[in-house]
Amino acid sequence: MTLKDTLLQIGQTARDASHAVARASTRAKNTALLAIASAIRAQRNELLAANAADLAAAKAEGLDAAMMDRLTLSEKGIEAMAQGLEQVAALPDPVGEITDLKRRPSGIQVGKMRVPLGVVGIIYEARPNVTADAAALCLKSGNAAILRGGKEAIRSNQAIAACVKQGLAAAGLPETAIQVIDTTDRAAVGYLITMPEFVDVIVPRGGKGLIERISKEARVPVIKHLDGNCHVYVDSAADPQKALAIVENAKTQRLGTCNTAESLLIARPIAASLLPRIAAMLTSRGIEIRGCDETRALVANAKPASEEDYATEYLAAIISCKVVADIDEAIAHINKYSSAHTEAIVTENYTTALRFLREVDSASVMVNASTRFADGFEYGLGAEIGISTDKFHARGPVGLEGLTSQKWIVLGNGEVRG
Amino acid sequence: MTLKDTLLQIGQTARDASHAVARASTRAKNTALLAIASAIRAQRNELLAANAADLAAAKAEGLDAAMMDRLTLSEKGIEAMAQGLEQVAALPDPVGEITDLKRRPSGIQVGKMRVPLGVVGIIYEARPNVTADAAALCLKSGNAAILRGGKEAIRSNQAIAACVKQGLAAAGLPETAIQVIDTTDRAAVGYLITMPEFVDVIVPRGGKGLIERISKEARVPVIKHLDGNCHVYVDSAADPQKALAIVENAKTQRLGTCNTAESLLIARPIAASLLPRIAAMLTSRGIEIRGCDETRALVANAKPASEEDYATEYLAAIISCKVVADIDEAIAHINKYSSAHTEAIVTENYTTALRFLREVDSASVMVNASTRFADGFEYGLGAEIGISTDKFHARGPVGLEGLTSQKWIVLGNGEVRG
Repeated sequence: MTLKDTLLQIGQTARDASHAVARASTRAKNTALLAIASAIRAQRNELLAANAADLAAAKAEGLDAAMMDRLTLSEKGIEAMAQGLEQVAALPDPVGEITDLKRRPSGIQVGKMRVPLGVVGIIYEARPNVTADAAALCLKSGNAAILRGGKEAIRSNQAIAACVKQGLAAAGLPETAIQVIDTTDRAAVGYLITMPEFVDVIVPRGGKGLIERISKEARVPVIKHLDGNCHVYVDSAADPQKALAIVENAKTQRLGTCNTAESLLIARPIAASLLPRIAAMLTSRGIEIRGCDETRALVANAKPASEEDYATEYLAAIISCKVVADIDEAIAHINKYSSAHTEAIVTENYTTALRFLREVDSASVMVNASTRFADGFEYGLGAEIGISTDKFHARGPVGLEGLTSQKWIVLGNGEVRG
Repeated sequence: MTLKDTLLQIGQTARDASHAVARASTRAKNTALLAIASAIRAQRNELLAANAADLAAAKAEGLDAAMMDRLTLSEKGIEAMAQGLEQVAALPDPVGEITDLKRRPSGIQVGKMRVPLGVVGIIYEARPNVTADAAALCLKSGNAAILRGGKEAIRSNQAIAACVKQGLAAAGLPETAIQVIDTTDRAAVGYLITMPEFVDVIVPRGGKGLIERISKEARVPVIKHLDGNCHVYVDSAADPQKALAIVENAKTQRLGTCNTAESLLIARPIAASLLPRIAAMLTSRGIEIRGCDETRALVANAKPASEEDYATEYLAAIISCKVVADIDEAIAHINKYSSAHTEAIVTENYTTALRFLREVDSASVMVNASTRFADGFEYGLGAEIGISTDKFHARGPVGLEGLTSQKWIVLGNGEVRG
């Protein structure tokens, strides 16, 4: 069988299974999730052995330390996977939820019912824990899934896939509901993202290069974000203590996350008094500041910022900084340079806060809070399959609801249209 | 300037204008809508003259009667356009609506704010009234729009575009917020649907061929439906009077609409008593019945139905008919043959009704109501830009809300992530 035929078969069996998963009871889906968790715990040794083989092969190929770290499944990581499945089981089932039922003048009641999207394709790098995580979210939201992890994790992923199959079987659900592609051939991704008849949405998780390529070539909707070039704007009416705490947390709590602040804007009237204090705090935390001329006049150790700096997601101990005239210049700067992920304003001024909320065109817009809150768990979604910086369908952190759609339902009593 | 450069310039100016429209007040948008309506009434004679020129050219090219009819702008049609604009002005503004604000354990309040999509491209056939209609919906939902109507209507559309510009200017909004492409070159569509940097969504309105081509070639999300192969399933627990009324209305009220029933399914236990009555009603209304063997045994004048019949949207005085064992066979048949537009069940059985609602995978699913209700006005959306049979983003009738997205907003008081 050619690779293309293999992918078409996976697609067809996923589509077939999706109908069973869509109408599965909450109890059946939770039974499967808990059974997968049990299987993962019971087959800890098999998982560790498969992962050891992946690690040995990766070491031989000279993978860097960060990739080796993401590839590693520890005993603790295995337990975390099992607990993650249990947490998803504990979340409310979004499928079948009926909302907005309203009676119309014709007599009919019209509302919406939440339904699964169908078949979700997840493409990710060599992180075995994503296999269990993505399987859980797709299953709970009533979708079938086709998972394609990085080739370095193939043995670990297949060991996890075996646990998933057991769990599905234990709940009487088709084993083809969650399929983990077992070829390392890169061409498989090309087929997966161009089968709209079998795949309803693709969620790529990983580096920018992977996501750009998938977005460009996909013939299926993609839920994605490319960059997290997040801004904090300290307004002239900012509370200095809040500004210091929020900038510190947004920039320094974790350097490598997509909701980390990469750029600081500060209003001119408050810059002279506050920017030196913020800069001293950042410097004490090891952050390099790259600023405009006004920044450099106030902050001795600041380096000059280029146009490119303002457009850069550093994911490193660097922050760009610009003194702006006011909220207008701040909003214009953000809407020009931002990647539309997350932006925050620090202000005590009501009208300025509302303008920022309304006019900043990003997936998450915050007042007096750290950009680090842009996260499915912090937002109360219970879990997160990814983050979207697009406006179509899901936007921002995507949880179970983002893997569903709503159909219209009409409850009548024999009504006909006049 | 090449055609491509022209389209890129239209795209860039639309993108620039979209920011102004997005933050425009409800008052400014409504002022523009009412001013466009006034301009259309005031320039009635110019519109009639432009339309007469279009009609003369179309007649010379031998357009068929139906197309000539759609192309015609009567005095009454012009007044209807103006009234349509006034109706959209009267609708609630969806932009800025904040929902689901919830306080999280961290102290932040998280919610959603409705925002425009950005730039909407509308591609439609030679129906000048769509120009005003689409402009109104895009503007009210805070979007910029690029409109591309059928080439036969070019003079009428440009006359309407002049009114739109006047209305925008009267409200202080950029005239480039709504642009009507003024070239008849078909290649313009190809550029319009492949500029994701300038166009956020395409809404094609027209024949299946046009929509299929656009969906296939677009590099931008498309809100669309191809077919309306709608079903009515008369269950064994149906109220015969409701069944008769609903089948009659769903099939015969209008033959050419996408929510017209094209296929009748009836449960075996009730077929012998009820199908002959339904068939007699349909025959008396001039509808040809094409049925399975069991249908033909009960209905003398029924012709045989082929596989293709069950998959066909007739848009004509024909209905396909099949006797099915029960709800299971009905749902399986619908999910196999339906175009996922609208399906209705007639039943008095509570459990059967809920199963149908849950398991039929269509944009609108109805109990004891005519499929003809699947419509933006009947659903209370106030207006309709189109109907979607996709699951991603909007599904079913698409009104103002379908032209918007939701961003997350966070209201904090200095919170940072722990």
